[in-house]
Amino acid sequence: MTASHNSDQQRRGYLLVFTGPGKGKTTSAVGSIIRALGHGLKPRLITFFKGNEKEFPRGTFNCLRDLGVPVENYVPEHPNFGNVSERKARSNCQKALQNLEQYFQTGAEDCDLLVLDEINVALSSSYIDEEQFLSLLDLKPPHLELICTGRDAPQSLIEKADLVSKIDDVKHFYRKDQTPRLGYEY
Amino acid sequence: MTASHNSDQQRRGYLLVFTGPGKGKTTSAVGSIIRALGHGLKPRLITFFKGNEKEFPRGTFNCLRDLGVPVENYVPEHPNFGNVSERKARSNCQKALQNLEQYFQTGAEDCDLLVLDEINVALSSSYIDEEQFLSLLDLKPPHLELICTGRDAPQSLIEKADLVSKIDDVKHFYRKDQTPRLGYEY
Repeated sequence: MTASHNSDQQRRGYLLVFTGPGKGKTTSAVGSIIRALGHGLKPRLITFFKGNEKEFPRGTFNCLRDLGVPVENYVPEHPNFGNVSERKARSNCQKALQNLEQYFQTGAEDCDLLVLDEINVALSSSYIDEEQFLSLLDLKPPHLELICTGRDAPQSLIEKADLVSKIDDVKHFYRKDQTPRLGYEY
Repeated sequence: MTASHNSDQQRRGYLLVFTGPGKGKTTSAVGSIIRALGHGLKPRLITFFKGNEKEFPRGTFNCLRDLGVPVENYVPEHPNFGNVSERKARSNCQKALQNLEQYFQTGAEDCDLLVLDEINVALSSSYIDEEQFLSLLDLKPPHLELICTGRDAPQSLIEKADLVSKIDDVKHFYRKDQTPRLGYEY
């Protein structure tokens, strides 16, 4: 099935933010990717801090790549949890931002839905400068739907967004059992 | 990549509930399906009230079916929003419940992750009886991970669940623009 891009309304891409401490932010963005794919749209995933793929292969990345969705994992680990220095994290985030700026400026014509997974964490940890990111958003091509995920989205991003979902952690079995399970947690 | 089911911990399937008024409940369950698929696990989707597929083809269903994920759409429309009588909705929900009971009793060995999409709505609208559903949950095979989505999950289900994420609608562009967009809202 191919996408119909006939109306202006169809071409208007929104800015969505999935934030909060609960489980379901990245998975929700991935579900949005799947829905878009099912109508022939072109989604793309850029992710931060989602772990070293060699040690920690992610089911989501496997499946999306099999489906032909471009997946870029910019900063494999967060300095607080992995073997990445703060300097390295900052420099990789900066690189991601530069590439994104160039991508936006050249029109992002090969993409309908772009997910910036855990960008809110990069912002709240100050690996990406909030003002710099907000300025980048002004360059977003109008057709492009953009989803920013991660806990602790800054207030300025929430204000700029068209849609914000906040996922609360009402109850979580991690409190009973901390080990992540292959296929269910990664 | 195939799943490793070596440990007991790996085989323990949890009961997860994604509820609340915000956008992201079904998409989050679909993202969980994609993660599971990427590690060779076997997911399955049973859905309620997600619209008549002939008039309203869903991108998510297209893509999941292409991936070989079984998708069953039990009650195409909700009586409050579509052309289905209350009696028909109740009888289809009852049929779904009977099939599910039989499926649980025979072990559900062909499935690792089962999503009951919008079951919380069926429960809160009383198309499925709360007590009957809780009794059914006692029959869930231990290996099976079960996700129940939909706003207004009943308190008894929240109490029984291992994990509950509540998605709040902080801001939603529907307030500005009500028309659902192909590939983005369905």
